[in-house]
Amino acid sequence: MSEPIEQALSDNGVLRLTLNNPQRRNALSMSMIAALHDAIKQADVSTAVKVIVLGANGPAFSAGHDLKEITAAREQPDKGRAFFSTLMGQCAAMMTDIVTCSKPVIAEVDGIATAAGCQLVASCDLAYASDTSRFATPGVNIGLFCSTPMVALSRNVANKHAMEMLLTGDMFSACDAERIGLINRVTDSESLKTLTHDIASKIAEKSSMTLAIGKAAFYRQKDMDLVQAYAYSAEVMVDNMLTKDGEEGITAFVEKRPPVWRNE
Amino acid sequence: MSEPIEQALSDNGVLRLTLNNPQRRNALSMSMIAALHDAIKQADVSTAVKVIVLGANGPAFSAGHDLKEITAAREQPDKGRAFFSTLMGQCAAMMTDIVTCSKPVIAEVDGIATAAGCQLVASCDLAYASDTSRFATPGVNIGLFCSTPMVALSRNVANKHAMEMLLTGDMFSACDAERIGLINRVTDSESLKTLTHDIASKIAEKSSMTLAIGKAAFYRQKDMDLVQAYAYSAEVMVDNMLTKDGEEGITAFVEKRPPVWRNE
Amino acid sequence: MSEPIEQALSDNGVLRLTLNNPQRRNALSMSMIAALHDAIKQADVSTAVKVIVLGANGPAFSAGHDLKEITAAREQPDKGRAFFSTLMGQCAAMMTDIVTCSKPVIAEVDGIATAAGCQLVASCDLAYASDTSRFATPGVNIGLFCSTPMVALSRNVANKHAMEMLLTGDMFSACDAERIGLINRVTDSESLKTLTHDIASKIAEKSSMTLAIGKAAFYRQKDMDLVQAYAYSAEVMVDNMLTKDGEEGITAFVEKRPPVWRNE
Repeated sequence: MSEPIEQALSDNGVLRLTLNNPQRRNALSMSMIAALHDAIKQADVSTAVKVIVLGANGPAFSAGHDLKEITAAREQPDKGRAFFSTLMGQCAAMMTDIVTCSKPVIAEVDGIATAAGCQLVASCDLAYASDTSRFATPGVNIGLFCSTPMVALSRNVANKHAMEMLLTGDMFSACDAERIGLINRVTDSESLKTLTHDIASKIAEKSSMTLAIGKAAFYRQKDMDLVQAYAYSAEVMVDNMLTKDGEEGITAFVEKRPPVWRNE
Repeated sequence: MSEPIEQALSDNGVLRLTLNNPQRRNALSMSMIAALHDAIKQADVSTAVKVIVLGANGPAFSAGHDLKEITAAREQPDKGRAFFSTLMGQCAAMMTDIVTCSKPVIAEVDGIATAAGCQLVASCDLAYASDTSRFATPGVNIGLFCSTPMVALSRNVANKHAMEMLLTGDMFSACDAERIGLINRVTDSESLKTLTHDIASKIAEKSSMTLAIGKAAFYRQKDMDLVQAYAYSAEVMVDNMLTKDGEEGITAFVEKRPPVWRNE
Repeated sequence: MSEPIEQALSDNGVLRLTLNNPQRRNALSMSMIAALHDAIKQADVSTAVKVIVLGANGPAFSAGHDLKEITAAREQPDKGRAFFSTLMGQCAAMMTDIVTCSKPVIAEVDGIATAAGCQLVASCDLAYASDTSRFATPGVNIGLFCSTPMVALSRNVANKHAMEMLLTGDMFSACDAERIGLINRVTDSESLKTLTHDIASKIAEKSSMTLAIGKAAFYRQKDMDLVQAYAYSAEVMVDNMLTKDGEEGITAFVEKRPPVWRNE
C-alpha cells in the first residue's frame, strides 16, 4: 500500500509533502491527518528542511474530511461522539502545527480544495494555485457548517467574503480566491510547480533561524494590541540583532558578498 | 400612514424587509430603528423565516440618522444628552441584532448608504449593490465623526480604506465598495433584486439549524485567539455532527438524493 | 548641516514633514527617529496644524534603519544590546506617535519604502504613492526578520500578503501595494504632490476637534469585541453630539451654509 504522504527533500532544503490518496480525493481521514501531523513535526525539527511545499496527487488538492469514516462512526454506541471529538481535535491540532511549525509552509493547489481542504490552504503561510483550482466551504450543503474551516478562513479574508463562502457553500474560482486574499497568486497549471519551487527556493536561501524567529513572532503579535505587539516585537528584534546570523547578514550586505548562515 | 418597514415573506422562507420612508431617505429615526429591531427579533424566532433580505424603497438605501430629530432634541433642558444616549444605544443594539440574529441577513443596496446607513450594510452578513449605489461615512463633514458606523466598517475593510472613508467623508462608488470588501458584489440595478433573491433562495434551502449554529460560531470565534477559536469551533462541529440534520445531510449526499431537513 | 526633517506649514493647516537625508536614503537613524518624534509631537499640540503630510526628498522614501549605525554599535562592550534596545524602543514609540497623534497623518511615497520605511507608511492613517514606488520588508535577506515592521504591516494587509512580503523580502510594486491595502491609491509621480495636497486640504477643512475624537476612537475600538466597541463608540458619539462643533455642523448643514468650527 502506498504512503498517504509522499516526501521529497531537494538539495536546497525544500521539502515537498504530497497528499497521495487521489482515489479518496486526498480526504483528511484520521490516518491522513496523523501522517500530515507526523510529517510536519519531523520537518519542524529537521535541520535539513528549510521550507515545506504542500501539494497533492490527482485532480483534487483535498476534499476535506472523509465522509465514509464519519458515517461509519455513527454505528458506535455513542453515535460517534468520541470519534468526532478526536477527529476534530486532531485536525485542529494538525492545522495549528502548520502555523506553529518553525519552517514556512507553502500550499500548492491544483484542483479543488474544499471544507477542511480549504482550511488546509488557509492555514499555510503562503498559497499558490492553478487557474483551474476551486475553493469552497460547502459543509452547509450537508447540514454541517464548516465551523473549524472558518477559523482559518476568517483569519485570512474579510468577513463578507468568508460569509459568502460559508453560507452559500459555492465554489470560488482561483481568481476569486486571489482577489479575496485566500491565496497569494494564480498561475496556469503547467507553471504552478515551477512557481512554488522558485518561491520556496528563494526562501530556503534565507537563514532558517531568522525565518523561525520571524514566523513565530508574526502569529504571536497578531493577537496583541498595538502597544503590546511593539513591546514584544522590539524584544524579538533586539535578540535577532544579537544573533550571529543577524550580524553576518548586515556585514555581508555592507561588504557586498553573499551571507554565510550558521543558524545561530 | 404607511409602515416604516414593509415585510414580505416568500414561500421558500425569504423574508424581505423594505425600509419604507423614501421621503426621509429612509433615515434611521428612533421609530425606524425600533421597527427594524422588532422586525429582526420577530424573524429571528419565526420558524417560517430562513433568510432575511434588507432592501429599501426610493432612491436612497438609508441616509443614516435623522438630523431633524437630533436637532429637535437639543431644545430639551439637557441639550439632548438623554435622547442622544438612547438613540445611540438603540441603534447599536439594532446593528448588533443583525449580527446575533440566527438567520443570515443580506443587504440589497440600490442608492446611497451613508453614515448609519453604511453601518447597516456593513452589519449585514452579506451585501450586494447596484452599480449606481454609493457609500460614505460623511459625519466628519458636519462635525460629527462616524464613530459608531466605524465599528461595523472597520470590522469589514482594511484600516487605510476605513480611514479614507471616515476622514474625507467622500462618496465611494459601488465598485470601490466591492474592491475594499464592504460589499460582496456589484450588479446593474435591473438585476439586483434577482441576484439577492437567488442568493437568499439558495441559502434558504440549507438547514436553518445549521445556518444558526454556523453564524453564531462565526462571530464568536472571530474575537478569540487561534487556540481558543479551534477549541471552541471543534466543539461546535462535534455537536453539529450529532444533530439529525448533520446525519441526514451526509446520508443524503452519500445516497445522492436531496436532504430533508428537520432543523434538529 | 541641513535639518533631518523639513517642515512647511501652509495657510490651510497642512503641515508637510519632509524626510531630508537623501544621501542616506532617509534612513531611520536615531537622529531621524528623534526628529520625527519631535515634529509629530509638536504638530500634535499645535492649533495651527490640522493635517500632516509625510514625504521625502530624494529617490527613496525611506530605506529603514541605518545599517552603519547598527554595525558601529556592535563595537561596544555589550555588542550593541543597549543601543539596539533603545533604537527599537524609540522607533516603535515614534511609529505609535503617528497612530496616537490627534491629527491625521498621510504618507506621500515617491520611491522605495523598505523595512522600517515600509512600517512608516503602514503606520500612517492614509498613504498615497507614485506608480514607480516600491515597498518591501527585506530584513530576512540580511538575517534580520522585519519583526517590528510587521506589527504595522499585519494590521493593514491580509496574512498571506504580509507573509509573502516578510518571507521573500521581495519588492512589491505600488500597484501591488494598492491591491493588498497597504496604500490607498497609486498615481503618476507628477500628480502625487497635488493628490496628497488635495486630500490633506479637504481633511483640513473639517473640525480638528472632530478629527481628533474620531481618530482616537478608531484605533481604540479596533482592539475591542463588538459589544465593547459599540458601548465605547456610542459614548464617544454622544459626547461629540454635545460639542459646539457637533451642533454647528448639523445646523450649518440644515441651513445650507458652510460650518464655522470652533474646535470645542
